[in-house]
Amino acid sequence: MLFDKVAILGIGHIGSSLARVIRRDRLAGKLVAFDASADHRAKAIELDIADAATGDISEAVGGADLVILATPVGSFAELASAMAPHLAAGSIVSDVGSVKMAVIRDVGPYLPESVHFVPGHPIAGTEFSGPTSGFAELFHGRWCILTPPPGTDSKAVAKVTQLWEAAGSMIEMMDAGHHDRVLAITSHLPHLIAYTIVGTATDLETSLQQEVVKFSASGFRDFTRIAASDPVMWRDIFLNNREAVLDVLQRFSEDLTALQRAIRWGEGEKLQDLFTRTRAIRRSIIDARQA
Amino acid sequence: MLFDKVAILGIGHIGSSLARVIRRDRLAGKLVAFDASADHRAKAIELDIADAATGDISEAVGGADLVILATPVGSFAELASAMAPHLAAGSIVSDVGSVKMAVIRDVGPYLPESVHFVPGHPIAGTEFSGPTSGFAELFHGRWCILTPPPGTDSKAVAKVTQLWEAAGSMIEMMDAGHHDRVLAITSHLPHLIAYTIVGTATDLETSLQQEVVKFSASGFRDFTRIAASDPVMWRDIFLNNREAVLDVLQRFSEDLTALQRAIRWGEGEKLQDLFTRTRAIRRSIIDARQA
Repeated sequence: MLFDKVAILGIGHIGSSLARVIRRDRLAGKLVAFDASADHRAKAIELDIADAATGDISEAVGGADLVILATPVGSFAELASAMAPHLAAGSIVSDVGSVKMAVIRDVGPYLPESVHFVPGHPIAGTEFSGPTSGFAELFHGRWCILTPPPGTDSKAVAKVTQLWEAAGSMIEMMDAGHHDRVLAITSHLPHLIAYTIVGTATDLETSLQQEVVKFSASGFRDFTRIAASDPVMWRDIFLNNREAVLDVLQRFSEDLTALQRAIRWGEGEKLQDLFTRTRAIRRSIIDARQA
Repeated sequence: MLFDKVAILGIGHIGSSLARVIRRDRLAGKLVAFDASADHRAKAIELDIADAATGDISEAVGGADLVILATPVGSFAELASAMAPHLAAGSIVSDVGSVKMAVIRDVGPYLPESVHFVPGHPIAGTEFSGPTSGFAELFHGRWCILTPPPGTDSKAVAKVTQLWEAAGSMIEMMDAGHHDRVLAITSHLPHLIAYTIVGTATDLETSLQQEVVKFSASGFRDFTRIAASDPVMWRDIFLNNREAVLDVLQRFSEDLTALQRAIRWGEGEKLQDLFTRTRAIRRSIIDARQA
């Protein structure tokens, strides 16, 4: 048994998937789901992925030796402030948020000295949300990035590592700021662009819009899948990784303007050169078994 | 037997897939593959997807009652000019190009009065290229858009329709200009954006680039698949659907700038509103069975 009591705060797509792993592998003596939504709490019990479900934060985290924050990152500060007085000495607090600097900024100051903070980010998920959408295999073969600040208790880091390894993940240790830069390009910018293009299409006149749906197999539909991700979660990500997102977005916009100019002036070679270069990175992803 | 002799000009991903359909269903007495690449010609024979393969255009189209252009659209004018003197009276010329106005502009003027021109565009394909990448099921359950100019012989249109129905496609008749507008948003803009973001990532410093590959499962990898599509084919599409692409690109850029501003100024509601609206279009695509 890895933990006596685990509290998962937010029993949505990621939280419920992790709960399923913990139940499957009997990693905790007791697993409590905290969620503000009565519907989510009822679902967690109905699906039998938690021993108890509560809307009372002190009940959730009291006596827990591991607390995992799995709500949208915009709620972390309030959650940390509310749970702090009830945290057990020596317990571990971790999270699954898609940004890490803001999480350290929002959660860190509330935690007592005796509590170990090990921020984490499983690079996994689908476009679906809520407790029913989770599954235990979600993290299998995927990376989980941990960003413990320097000086974090190594035993606490080891236990969080063991948890994600049980989920089938590969672990990467990273500086939080570096994490935010890497994810800005690999995840946040792609989502922003997908949301934008789908938004552009929904603003078209109704007749054209129906045809966009009909003929979406030609490229558009891949963007709609990404743009169906949870709205509140993604709002919070953009608001909390502002600098890194704006930086890569600026680069992207410059590159797009250059392509726009090449199309306008019929510069075929420039287009073909880029389109040939981009093929190589696909090859690397296939070789890295992340395709 | 639908045709006595079919000539497919360009035995790549789409051409070879259509050849497989024609062979499977015995739709032609004879099937000849024309390709400038000796390697592609050899592959076509080795794979047994054509009765003959040739680099001689007169040999390919001579006596054919159906000629299908399946090379990148930038080569159509030259191909049409070269094949025109050898076309049989009463024969049908069709194509699979992703743009339709430019194809009518480039091919139409070369064709003798006695030849029927039925431009087409199967909305299907993968990121792979070449004759080995084709498969007969590629068009199954997908749309094929035909854009015959007003006054086109209805029997010729019916025969091309039958061919694509045999491939398992659903047929849509459309004005060529309208086709180009619809595809600009559903296909050309998504590809342009995917190429751009993958290009932006390849311009990052080497260490960061390796991490982009490693953590690509977080959104980026979906773009790399699209950005692995054939470079020459896509160069030609952008050069030949310039106005429609520049128009939707302008709308997209405005929308992206608005989002950029919302992120900079922390306008969470604007972000959440858009992210909620975009979910609905995904639902429509699933309902239309195009997901």
